[in-house]
Amino acid sequence: MLLVNNIRLSRIIINTWYVDIIMIASCMGAYFIREYLIAYHFSIPTIIPTVLGTAIAFFIGFNNNQAYDRWWEARKVWGGLVNDSRSFARSLLSYVPQSDENNVLVQRMVHRHIAFLYALKAKLRGTVDLIYVKYLDEEERTQVEKQANIHNAILHKQSEDLEKLYSCGKIDGFKFMQINELLVKFSDQMGMSERIKNTVFPTTYSYLTKVFIWLFVVTFTLVISQEMGVWSIFMGWMIGFVFVSTQINGMNLVDPFENNVAGIPLNQITRTIEINLLEMMGEEDTPPPILPINDEYVL
Amino acid sequence: MLLVNNIRLSRIIINTWYVDIIMIASCMGAYFIREYLIAYHFSIPTIIPTVLGTAIAFFIGFNNNQAYDRWWEARKVWGGLVNDSRSFARSLLSYVPQSDENNVLVQRMVHRHIAFLYALKAKLRGTVDLIYVKYLDEEERTQVEKQANIHNAILHKQSEDLEKLYSCGKIDGFKFMQINELLVKFSDQMGMSERIKNTVFPTTYSYLTKVFIWLFVVTFTLVISQEMGVWSIFMGWMIGFVFVSTQINGMNLVDPFENNVAGIPLNQITRTIEINLLEMMGEEDTPPPILPINDEYVL
Amino acid sequence: MLLVNNIRLSRIIINTWYVDIIMIASCMGAYFIREYLIAYHFSIPTIIPTVLGTAIAFFIGFNNNQAYDRWWEARKVWGGLVNDSRSFARSLLSYVPQSDENNVLVQRMVHRHIAFLYALKAKLRGTVDLIYVKYLDEEERTQVEKQANIHNAILHKQSEDLEKLYSCGKIDGFKFMQINELLVKFSDQMGMSERIKNTVFPTTYSYLTKVFIWLFVVTFTLVISQEMGVWSIFMGWMIGFVFVSTQINGMNLVDPFENNVAGIPLNQITRTIEINLLEMMGEEDTPPPILPINDEYVL
Amino acid sequence: MLLVNNIRLSRIIINTWYVDIIMIASCMGAYFIREYLIAYHFSIPTIIPTVLGTAIAFFIGFNNNQAYDRWWEARKVWGGLVNDSRSFARSLLSYVPQSDENNVLVQRMVHRHIAFLYALKAKLRGTVDLIYVKYLDEEERTQVEKQANIHNAILHKQSEDLEKLYSCGKIDGFKFMQINELLVKFSDQMGMSERIKNTVFPTTYSYLTKVFIWLFVVTFTLVISQEMGVWSIFMGWMIGFVFVSTQINGMNLVDPFENNVAGIPLNQITRTIEINLLEMMGEEDTPPPILPINDEYVL
Amino acid sequence: MLLVNNIRLSRIIINTWYVDIIMIASCMGAYFIREYLIAYHFSIPTIIPTVLGTAIAFFIGFNNNQAYDRWWEARKVWGGLVNDSRSFARSLLSYVPQSDENNVLVQRMVHRHIAFLYALKAKLRGTVDLIYVKYLDEEERTQVEKQANIHNAILHKQSEDLEKLYSCGKIDGFKFMQINELLVKFSDQMGMSERIKNTVFPTTYSYLTKVFIWLFVVTFTLVISQEMGVWSIFMGWMIGFVFVSTQINGMNLVDPFENNVAGIPLNQITRTIEINLLEMMGEEDTPPPILPINDEYVL
Repeated sequence: MLLVNNIRLSRIIINTWYVDIIMIASCMGAYFIREYLIAYHFSIPTIIPTVLGTAIAFFIGFNNNQAYDRWWEARKVWGGLVNDSRSFARSLLSYVPQSDENNVLVQRMVHRHIAFLYALKAKLRGTVDLIYVKYLDEEERTQVEKQANIHNAILHKQSEDLEKLYSCGKIDGFKFMQINELLVKFSDQMGMSERIKNTVFPTTYSYLTKVFIWLFVVTFTLVISQEMGVWSIFMGWMIGFVFVSTQINGMNLVDPFENNVAGIPLNQITRTIEINLLEMMGEEDTPPPILPINDEYVL
Repeated sequence: MLLVNNIRLSRIIINTWYVDIIMIASCMGAYFIREYLIAYHFSIPTIIPTVLGTAIAFFIGFNNNQAYDRWWEARKVWGGLVNDSRSFARSLLSYVPQSDENNVLVQRMVHRHIAFLYALKAKLRGTVDLIYVKYLDEEERTQVEKQANIHNAILHKQSEDLEKLYSCGKIDGFKFMQINELLVKFSDQMGMSERIKNTVFPTTYSYLTKVFIWLFVVTFTLVISQEMGVWSIFMGWMIGFVFVSTQINGMNLVDPFENNVAGIPLNQITRTIEINLLEMMGEEDTPPPILPINDEYVL
Repeated sequence: MLLVNNIRLSRIIINTWYVDIIMIASCMGAYFIREYLIAYHFSIPTIIPTVLGTAIAFFIGFNNNQAYDRWWEARKVWGGLVNDSRSFARSLLSYVPQSDENNVLVQRMVHRHIAFLYALKAKLRGTVDLIYVKYLDEEERTQVEKQANIHNAILHKQSEDLEKLYSCGKIDGFKFMQINELLVKFSDQMGMSERIKNTVFPTTYSYLTKVFIWLFVVTFTLVISQEMGVWSIFMGWMIGFVFVSTQINGMNLVDPFENNVAGIPLNQITRTIEINLLEMMGEEDTPPPILPINDEYVL
Repeated sequence: MLLVNNIRLSRIIINTWYVDIIMIASCMGAYFIREYLIAYHFSIPTIIPTVLGTAIAFFIGFNNNQAYDRWWEARKVWGGLVNDSRSFARSLLSYVPQSDENNVLVQRMVHRHIAFLYALKAKLRGTVDLIYVKYLDEEERTQVEKQANIHNAILHKQSEDLEKLYSCGKIDGFKFMQINELLVKFSDQMGMSERIKNTVFPTTYSYLTKVFIWLFVVTFTLVISQEMGVWSIFMGWMIGFVFVSTQINGMNLVDPFENNVAGIPLNQITRTIEINLLEMMGEEDTPPPILPINDEYVL
Repeated sequence: MLLVNNIRLSRIIINTWYVDIIMIASCMGAYFIREYLIAYHFSIPTIIPTVLGTAIAFFIGFNNNQAYDRWWEARKVWGGLVNDSRSFARSLLSYVPQSDENNVLVQRMVHRHIAFLYALKAKLRGTVDLIYVKYLDEEERTQVEKQANIHNAILHKQSEDLEKLYSCGKIDGFKFMQINELLVKFSDQMGMSERIKNTVFPTTYSYLTKVFIWLFVVTFTLVISQEMGVWSIFMGWMIGFVFVSTQINGMNLVDPFENNVAGIPLNQITRTIEINLLEMMGEEDTPPPILPINDEYVL
């Protein structure tokens, strides 16, 4: 997630340079074709790029809306994980009677929940996470890693421990229900993250929009070169840049779990939950929060 | 679901060729009518296609928004099925006490749930599914197939087994409630899928939009042919293509359960749940995940 | 609900003929006024219909969005009724212990639920429904028909029977709660249907839009008649038709419970629930599904 | 809520006359300034009002969307009150065992609920309501009126009576929970109504939009007066009227609880609930429904 | 939150003066460049600012929509806190049996809840709040202030007291559940507020929009100066002002918890809850409501 309001121009150029080159080349092509071929035969009506421009603004607007909605939905899902993780720890710590045996079990469940979050994060980011090892004992780790879906296997372990608490009479049915409902919510949030991760945004939309922008830039340059001559190459590129950068900007939000500057700061969120949960258990030695990189973005 | 970002041009042409032919024919007609008839009497004002173009961009935008919402809602419903299926299996496996008799019943219920998903998928896709046979015993299959709505009949069986667990005291009221709530959710998700499948997107919208695009292409060609001559046929088709392909693209999302490349990958999702549930039961012999076809799309 | 993609042109003309006549008359008026009065004094700038056209496209877009949302919300409410009706029958059939006495009560409750749906449908459609009589016994019918709100009275009866099951110990508190929650949902869905039925879509919107379209058509004709002469009457009507038919099309969705081809197929939905519920009770003699009329629409 | 489709023109003129006068004066000013000052120095480019017109259409569209959403949300909240009020009465009447003492308590609670609705309505409308006195006994009225928030105080009374039913064993925990959940919902709906009532729609939006429309009307008149002469005053006002009336129309929906013709018909809704609840209790003497005034609107 | 409809012009100029200066300088630059450089070489086509203007109107519309949604979501979250706070106090006061010991505990919990709200508000506003000290006893304050997240620590204390009530048999499982669900909701609302506070609105959007508006103003001035001469500087600024002020206005809503005039009136809302809760406990000495400042805005 970018934090600064004045983005370095270099960042935007890095994002668009290959498209910029294509656009400038197309504008030059359009200029020369019109100057040396078309000019002798007919003039090109202004209405062509006008209508195209309006239509493309609509389609880019559509793409950006859906992209932003995906991004915000993803952010909400992880916001929900924050809230429910705190409720989960609070319920276990307050509602399971204090005793040496119980405290060990409660601590194990809270630690395992942190492992669950790190495992889920690693899956969504496509990275390998080593922190989750810290919060799972050796034996359990071997078991869950046998399954294709590690975080689901961890959740299964939580249910088994919850059942243990219940069947031994440490908690009653009401408390069992309240805590189980949180496990169901974790299952939901885990599945919602996977859904956003695995569902490709309809690719025809972004593909067609790219084609349409290219058509627009070419016809636009053809038209303005009738009045502006060689300067039309610059102007064609500039107008194209307005559309292209907005489109690329939107498409950056489409995959909110990527490990890049546009993504949701899963590292930071997971660490926040980790600190909150450890503090609630009264542990002294909490890890430091994730800080922004260069004061510019946070992962 | 398409996976690749650079769609093969052939795919788009296959989707639109019949419309392209109609459009080119109309543009040619418009060109000749203007050239040999209208030109001697009056000129056609630019404002006609300008206003039409803006209006049509709105209507296509509207169609695309609603279509995308249907598609995303359908995806959410099946995402919900993934989450709740895991919670269902987790609850049965963790909260029903382990015993030979119980384990058989739990396994039967989880298998039956997989059958439920395959039966629902087959209904939505309008195909015949043979996998669901594997997860239902002979007798039960005969019973449920007597009813018009097979997946609803399977769900009914689940309630009866849940009641059996409850009335025999294997689970208590709290657990009964938690599991029954999942059955209610399956009923909701099943009904929501059927709703999206069976409700026709208001056909007047797509019909009128088609008519309006045709009107636009004709008047547009009439106008630009005043300046561009015979090249207006090409330009008229090109602008028409921008509108038509966007409209067709949106309409492809309107029926998200169709067994085509634009549809939601029900095969893949169902298989994912199947693997997750079998793994949770500790079964070794899980089927392989559904792989993309040609690395291009997944069904 | 219309089913076909290629709507007969006659249907659209029937929907708009009175507006078409007004538009053609206005265009003729505009043509003659400009030709014989204005032409000698001043010319009319193109910007007037251009700005009006853009603005009106926005307002029609707004109307259509809200209208579609009402329609889809209504469809969701009745989809919810389908799902919860099945859950209701499933719960009663599976969770109430089988006995002669109980079975009679359960059957009565499921039948009464079908009566509830038919009574609600009749109220929303403003028609008289005779099927609901079939599913209520004589005495009960007399009682509920005394009240202004028949379907609410039927729901009240359901609560009383549920209380009977509970106070006699046929079901326990957990089951009571699960079934009562479905009754609360029926009350919600009933109220939501009534809300959509009784809340008039802000009439000033549709009124103003009609006035604005008329203004647009007139000024548009005034402008294009400067170039096109008498043909402007045809063109003015055509562009007006684009706006008018879209507006009328949207307004058709505003009252989704009307008994017309644009409405939600309540007959079909109610019958589907009826068949499902009767099949679940094992009744042999189920009524036939509602079929489309002329393969064109379903009510 | 307006009921008629053909609004009397007088109603719209009453709503906009002061703005109309300002607009006509501005148009006249613009005409004379251009005619006698600007005309000798430079011409005014058409692009100025064109761009302004498009931008303003967007901003008005934005305002209208948000305004409609507030209005529809308010309508949903009161629709929810209808549904939950019926469920509340149904639960009390069916689930509290019949006895003289109980019946008195149940009747008092249902009556008090009607008082709650009338008190809430009076607060939202900023009026004094005398009907709620009828449904509260003298002593209780004195108590609740001591508090700043009367309807919240009434709800508190309901909880105390519910506790009485529960602690005396008239209802069990399950029933207590079901009824208490309805009280929580009433608290939500009450707070949601207050939120919509008390949150001012961001005033800068409507202020800026007014300023922009004025700028548009003036530049528009400047431009068209170059071609149309004195008729531009009429045309400038007409186009301005299209924007202004749409904007004012939207802003009328922003405060949906006002006691005017655009507001939500709280009188009618409250009376509907009152009749339903009294009928459910078997009371004979129900008040008449609220009828539309002049067949034109209902409050 | 601004309360007045006619905002003082000074307020808007204060918000935009630095941008206004940049725009006027750019317009002057554009004017002189065209007048003394470009005019001798080529003319600038009108289509450039036309297309840019339409596109920018879209992007500003997008920004404003998302900004408003964030603001309204934030308002809803705090509206939810109002409702649930009342339900929380009502439940404790009505459902915990009256006794000296119990009353002390209930009072402590309600007071602590007020402290929770003030602590949360202070965190969101980035201010130091001294009122929350009043509602926490010394010892507890020292404990919670040790943790990084004070409001979460306070919530943890609530769970411990709730457990105390439950384990001593003062409330039964049903009541425990109802009250615990409110604590879970407080955890959700606290986390939702933090999410909105901490998630930066994608900065590239506002950055690019600023760049695009600047491009638009410059090209617009270049074009109109061909007809209007030096007056184009004024007109360029004016049109730029329309876009810039709308954009800035939207961006003011993006951080709804800031302690400024555009923010949500957290002071007022918290005080309302405080008064309601103290009144419900029968305390006489309630603090005064927060009044608007200058009748212009409320914090």
